[in-house]
Amino acid sequence: IAQVLYDFTAEPGNNELTVKEGETLTITNQHIGGGWIEAQNSRGEIGLVPEDYIEVNSKSQFAKPVPRRHDHITTEECTFNSHQTINGNDPWSVWNADPSGGSNNNWASNPEGTQTGKTAPDPWSSVSQGHPQAYQGPAEDDEWDDEWDDMKSTGGYAESESGDGGGIQRGGAHATSMKISLNKFPGFSKSGPELYLLCKQLTKGKDKLPIYVGEVGPVWFYPETQLDCVVADPKKGSKMYGLKSYIEYQITPSTTNRPVNHRYKHFDWLYERLLDKFGSAIPIPSLPDKQVTGRFEEEFIKMRMERLQGWMSRMCRHPVVSSSEVFQLFLTYKDEKEWKMGKRKAEKDETVGVMIFSTIEPEAPDIDLIEVDQKCEQFSRFTKAMDDGVKEILTVGHEHWKRCTGPLPKEYQRIGKAFQNLSSVFNSSGYQGESTLTDAMTAAGKTYEEIAQMFAEQPKKDLHFLMETNNEYKGLLGCFPDTIGVHKAAIDKVKEGDKLVATSKITPHEKVTMAKRVSVMSYALQAEMNHFHSNRIYDYNRVMQLYLEEQVKFYETIAAKLRQAHGQFTTM
Amino acid sequence: IAQVLYDFTAEPGNNELTVKEGETLTITNQHIGGGWIEAQNSRGEIGLVPEDYIEVNSKSQFAKPVPRRHDHITTEECTFNSHQTINGNDPWSVWNADPSGGSNNNWASNPEGTQTGKTAPDPWSSVSQGHPQAYQGPAEDDEWDDEWDDMKSTGGYAESESGDGGGIQRGGAHATSMKISLNKFPGFSKSGPELYLLCKQLTKGKDKLPIYVGEVGPVWFYPETQLDCVVADPKKGSKMYGLKSYIEYQITPSTTNRPVNHRYKHFDWLYERLLDKFGSAIPIPSLPDKQVTGRFEEEFIKMRMERLQGWMSRMCRHPVVSSSEVFQLFLTYKDEKEWKMGKRKAEKDETVGVMIFSTIEPEAPDIDLIEVDQKCEQFSRFTKAMDDGVKEILTVGHEHWKRCTGPLPKEYQRIGKAFQNLSSVFNSSGYQGESTLTDAMTAAGKTYEEIAQMFAEQPKKDLHFLMETNNEYKGLLGCFPDTIGVHKAAIDKVKEGDKLVATSKITPHEKVTMAKRVSVMSYALQAEMNHFHSNRIYDYNRVMQLYLEEQVKFYETIAAKLRQAHGQFTTM
Repeated sequence: IAQVLYDFTAEPGNNELTVKEGETLTITNQHIGGGWIEAQNSRGEIGLVPEDYIEVNSKSQFAKPVPRRHDHITTEECTFNSHQTINGNDPWSVWNADPSGGSNNNWASNPEGTQTGKTAPDPWSSVSQGHPQAYQGPAEDDEWDDEWDDMKSTGGYAESESGDGGGIQRGGAHATSMKISLNKFPGFSKSGPELYLLCKQLTKGKDKLPIYVGEVGPVWFYPETQLDCVVADPKKGSKMYGLKSYIEYQITPSTTNRPVNHRYKHFDWLYERLLDKFGSAIPIPSLPDKQVTGRFEEEFIKMRMERLQGWMSRMCRHPVVSSSEVFQLFLTYKDEKEWKMGKRKAEKDETVGVMIFSTIEPEAPDIDLIEVDQKCEQFSRFTKAMDDGVKEILTVGHEHWKRCTGPLPKEYQRIGKAFQNLSSVFNSSGYQGESTLTDAMTAAGKTYEEIAQMFAEQPKKDLHFLMETNNEYKGLLGCFPDTIGVHKAAIDKVKEGDKLVATSKITPHEKVTMAKRVSVMSYALQAEMNHFHSNRIYDYNRVMQLYLEEQVKFYETIAAKLRQAHGQFTTM
Repeated sequence: IAQVLYDFTAEPGNNELTVKEGETLTITNQHIGGGWIEAQNSRGEIGLVPEDYIEVNSKSQFAKPVPRRHDHITTEECTFNSHQTINGNDPWSVWNADPSGGSNNNWASNPEGTQTGKTAPDPWSSVSQGHPQAYQGPAEDDEWDDEWDDMKSTGGYAESESGDGGGIQRGGAHATSMKISLNKFPGFSKSGPELYLLCKQLTKGKDKLPIYVGEVGPVWFYPETQLDCVVADPKKGSKMYGLKSYIEYQITPSTTNRPVNHRYKHFDWLYERLLDKFGSAIPIPSLPDKQVTGRFEEEFIKMRMERLQGWMSRMCRHPVVSSSEVFQLFLTYKDEKEWKMGKRKAEKDETVGVMIFSTIEPEAPDIDLIEVDQKCEQFSRFTKAMDDGVKEILTVGHEHWKRCTGPLPKEYQRIGKAFQNLSSVFNSSGYQGESTLTDAMTAAGKTYEEIAQMFAEQPKKDLHFLMETNNEYKGLLGCFPDTIGVHKAAIDKVKEGDKLVATSKITPHEKVTMAKRVSVMSYALQAEMNHFHSNRIYDYNRVMQLYLEEQVKFYETIAAKLRQAHGQFTTM
């Protein structure tokens, strides 16, 4: 039994059910996925209703997927939670404060916690304080989002986009923020990795994700040619007779070389699908959402585009993500119809959350639990340490940026002015034949003014990219507590296998299955870490080269300018 | 009638008179000069007594040289007055605040002021607030002076140096600070330029200072080879069985190439003689006294020596100063006896203060008053403007120094550490084959640490000399208010010539003499300005070249280091 919270108008031909606020429904199938529930109304009509639009009555609570605290966080919450993050909540703090093993104690203290869905001691609770990768951007970003990509629903507005299923759903999401966000990801909504560890039957067929053992260890299957795409040509569009405007970007994949157009909200939709589907195994970094700064419209658009490009490139480089149906759809849909059909399909995908592991097939023998545990600990330590290192660079870089664009140019400016002032005093001496000196001093002064300008502009040429790369990695690393957390939970579950058998919670066969499956998970994690490492090495090599190259140019240009200024003085 | 303030023991064979504190003397000749007065004691004995050691009774005040406010300031006063200078007293403010002519009004409002010696509105009063060139050094300098060059008299100590007339006098000077300093310079003590303008007979003979008219205008006579000297080899000596220590410097003039030794107090003695003798016509910059900073003994000695070298070089470069008897004595005395005799003679020199102009012989026709006035105004404007310009460079340079040695190295240090930290995190990844990256990142990090070090050390290599030169010029320029003030006073006196004739204060012939003599003064000022300009052009050319050369090297070295760091990264 469920209560309808908001009016919902069914789209014809989609098995949807039109419902009115206050109406009572009987849930006929809660496991549709993609945010949909099958329900029957009082007139006996059966159809799909957005999960978010209804409230399941308390007595049927147990039947409903228990909401996990850490779920997708909508825009409003993100802003809110970000503040909490600022106030000292470190997503790493709970489960990684003591890398020597203390982190396991948190789990051990409440071994049933993840199974029963109790809200008490939960290692995720600190993680759920906000997307750790969320950039603490200025508040004005929200306004930009409002203006261009907001779907904040007036009923009419949502209706006007009724052909756009995702649009409606998100429109509703905004209206009911919290409640909806808790139920958004069916996969994640399950109470833990045991959904996969104990499930009866694994997915079969074409969607299998093989893992090979390469030189560096387990690796994903990499296609021969790597996908890439170009995000370009942002165009302003408008709707509602010009009342609402938005930016549409052109994305051209290297495979088809045929551009498709997407608004920011489509990227966001893609992000949510990828997070749903792969988030347990693969860190899916947040979109450049809050991260975008920029005072002026053009600057803002350019920056967002640059970051969307970065995000898309990273997704393209991931062999699993880039070859996924939903990602391919996003890049290569041929027309509106294909896009919409593809969207519906993606939203109904049930192989999400921990179930992604059911599609993974390592071509290697099972790993024992001790090794799985060790690997997981190692990755946890490494990602935590790198997170610290990256944050240190960001902090230092931010300081350096401020100095290079603030006090330093001012100082060189003042040095330049002081030389020029003295030069013009000298010029007023009335003494013959000092024009060589005064010209040279003026030139030296102007040179320092140029150097001031150079200092102010340099960060955009080098530090910017160092910061962007580290910012991207901060985002990626912020996903690891989630990803690694799933693994730790699975490991803990397997560790208590004997006890579960003894208390008849699981069968001995299920215990064996669990051990095999945690081995699969470990292969996935290792493949992902190896992917991460190889990308990291490439990215840091590239960005450090770029940074140092620009720095060399910078200092060489200064030296050359000063050499020229020096040449104007004469030894008499 | 005068009262003896302190005991004074006569040196045999010097016509000196031993006196006791409290004794009453009758002054028989107040115009001995060199700080001495001829007096008769109650027993009828006549002899010389240091002017500073006696207080002339009030009724004989008029007969006594009226103390000028602006006189030599002893160590203690200097410290005190410096603070006043900090608090906003600009020596330029009174007579040069309004270059359009307002400065003359100050004089006009009290045209008799300089003649009668009244203490009321006096254009010097603002100047007398302290040596404008006095560097506002830290208080610890006083301690250094105390330790090494102090002559603070215990009676016994002064006695122990009884063979050293200057020593005694200065010993007393410390004990009686204020009173003595007011009476120290007989030349300056005279109430103004009319001493020269109206004096009956000019000095004759070999001491004449010719002025020629060269390409740039009036110039001093320059010797064919320019004198120079090397100040080196500071040695610590001690007296009083090691209780008092001092530093003796070795000075080797380029003429004789024979070193002489001098303590700092001898330099100070020379400075006072030069100031007495040439101060009205030639800016004699203060010795590097308070200017010396340095936390450690060695650093202090090195810095003081460097500045004494700078001061001596500047004096050597001045054709009038370097060829003067007292300067030659200082550089070339052969033994103690010659030194002492020369000292006595120099101290008794009566051609001091404005009387120096009586020795100047321009080989050119008289200049009319309007032109004299214009020249003076021009120099006044220029030196004021340059003083501002120099101070601006010092301020900016000081800021830059602080940044280069403070926050900048810290920042580059932190950048270096951040790279190295990330490198060591990468090193812990367990991923194969990233040693190239981690080595390169460590190298880049170390490079930034080296750059930090370079930033911290660079100011000593370039900014230091720019600062020193500008500091020297600040000192020189600080003398111009005095020098130009003498000229302005003379011009004003000549301007009121008709009035003085009308009121029978001077004869018509004296008026003509005054006009001629102010023309001589103007030639001297012009020659001096031309000397100043040519030195200035040389000095600034040299220091700017040095500064820029070192700056080029600095930035080139950074670029080279970064290029090397860059080379360690690989494009994979």
